[in-house]
Amino acid sequence: MAKELVFGHTNPDTDAIGAAYAYSAYENLKGGDTEPVALGEPNDETKFAFETFGFDKPRVVTTVADLTDKVMLVDHNEFQQSAPDIKDVTITHVVDHHRISNFMTADPLYYRAEPIGSTSTVIWKMFKEAEMMIPKNIAGLMMSGIISDTLLLKSPTTTKWDEEALADLAEIAGINYQEYGINLLKAGTDTSSKSEKELIDLDAKTFEMNGKKVRVAQMNTVDIPEVLERKAGFIKEITAENAAEGYDLFVFLITNILDSDSEGLVIGSADGVAKFEKTFAKKVVADQVALPGVVSRKKQIVPQLSAEY
Amino acid sequence: MAKELVFGHTNPDTDAIGAAYAYSAYENLKGGDTEPVALGEPNDETKFAFETFGFDKPRVVTTVADLTDKVMLVDHNEFQQSAPDIKDVTITHVVDHHRISNFMTADPLYYRAEPIGSTSTVIWKMFKEAEMMIPKNIAGLMMSGIISDTLLLKSPTTTKWDEEALADLAEIAGINYQEYGINLLKAGTDTSSKSEKELIDLDAKTFEMNGKKVRVAQMNTVDIPEVLERKAGFIKEITAENAAEGYDLFVFLITNILDSDSEGLVIGSADGVAKFEKTFAKKVVADQVALPGVVSRKKQIVPQLSAEY
Repeated sequence: MAKELVFGHTNPDTDAIGAAYAYSAYENLKGGDTEPVALGEPNDETKFAFETFGFDKPRVVTTVADLTDKVMLVDHNEFQQSAPDIKDVTITHVVDHHRISNFMTADPLYYRAEPIGSTSTVIWKMFKEAEMMIPKNIAGLMMSGIISDTLLLKSPTTTKWDEEALADLAEIAGINYQEYGINLLKAGTDTSSKSEKELIDLDAKTFEMNGKKVRVAQMNTVDIPEVLERKAGFIKEITAENAAEGYDLFVFLITNILDSDSEGLVIGSADGVAKFEKTFAKKVVADQVALPGVVSRKKQIVPQLSAEY
Repeated sequence: MAKELVFGHTNPDTDAIGAAYAYSAYENLKGGDTEPVALGEPNDETKFAFETFGFDKPRVVTTVADLTDKVMLVDHNEFQQSAPDIKDVTITHVVDHHRISNFMTADPLYYRAEPIGSTSTVIWKMFKEAEMMIPKNIAGLMMSGIISDTLLLKSPTTTKWDEEALADLAEIAGINYQEYGINLLKAGTDTSSKSEKELIDLDAKTFEMNGKKVRVAQMNTVDIPEVLERKAGFIKEITAENAAEGYDLFVFLITNILDSDSEGLVIGSADGVAKFEKTFAKKVVADQVALPGVVSRKKQIVPQLSAEY
């Protein structure tokens, strides 16, 4: 019997991979036989977390049905964000903190989602409810997922649960989360070695909105003007990707993690761009728009755009 | 600010209405402002439970958007089983024990589902995790939901959680669950006063299967031959309903709650009936088929048919 695989979304971020490790540990401590994997290479931020807490590089897979017949999803549920052959396996568990869309099963399953800052926080609650100890190095990964998703508790998605979980996990891991948090976020912002194509794909998700595909990508930085020196390159790559993948709209958020503002590049069909402008009551000029105070794709971009589509 | 409404599926059974009361009580004890309602008249079994535990008749509503802007769903998630205007309100919470299908939200939400015998059992686990006391009369309704959905722990959907929850709730309610359980189930089987049309609608759900609508209805009895004296009437009403509602297939399960067998009436398009026959490797003769050991629509009918469609 193959191990049941546990994984987060494609283009994984730190919460996607960290939560897979945490949830696999939780299930195995309860007697399960699971293995965490990643649907893509870890980014620099995730690598920093894995090295800090003594983990080897995660196992990366592209398809799953050739490896197992049962899977558990963390940090996502929409099929277009999952393995390409997700419909060929049975999903037995989902632990998430996103909207539910384009998801279905033939059988009843275990599903736990909460509208809070990170999937790692949901898993922290599950450990507490079951009165189970969280292994020290797993606590480190869970901290990292919370810090990454909430931008060190500054995103509007942050709840009291995330604050409580982060403080508790930092104590278990024996680490100062403020200091570690800044270092973790900065580790993810070294973009000099990456191409424009890599940057627009780094943390990108596709959303189905009323039959159309909308891509929302995000990158973190501590210096937006420096990133925008490469604007022409981003526009070229986004335009090519829209044509190749059939995206109606591509929104690329460049987020300053220190002052919590974003600049957006917005490229797509005339109708798609018009929908964006109407949604946010802003004019997109030369493919660009200022989005002060916007740091959360999930809370400040996707629901508003979905409602307009 | 209108109260947030909590409700189960249309054609409500005892778990649908009982779980709405239990979950509303849970949320209100945690500081919420919710009210349980029912999307249809309670059946005789549910009335028996409400009378036994001193509740007034539940408030029945047909639409919800005119009453509130936020709702919590229990015991269902598929939109075609919910209020007709469910898309006009925000779903903030779901507590369920079914597959997920034809469900979506624009925003993250609280979602808790487990593949166990009843929604009341899931809510029992939530009360325990939060270390909250269950009010005595609410415990009575939760017991009734478990007994109804698991046919007094005899359905194949029954898990150790249902057994544990029922024993605990019986202690809180101060009642012998074996004796009460038989009386509750029998209260739902007096069909003499009901028309064939009422009986095929009593506990019926519509499932979307690959773009087609499949209706699966169930009634409980202690005497299948007596019920089948009205077979011609059932066939007439089912045929009329298929035409009016565009069902590809209608499966009517007549279940003996004492010996846990069913007889099925299977009526629909030639293709739909053929799919049923292929799924269960049985011939439907004169619209009828014996289904020994089948008592669970959710576990023994819907996933198998879904896979064939």
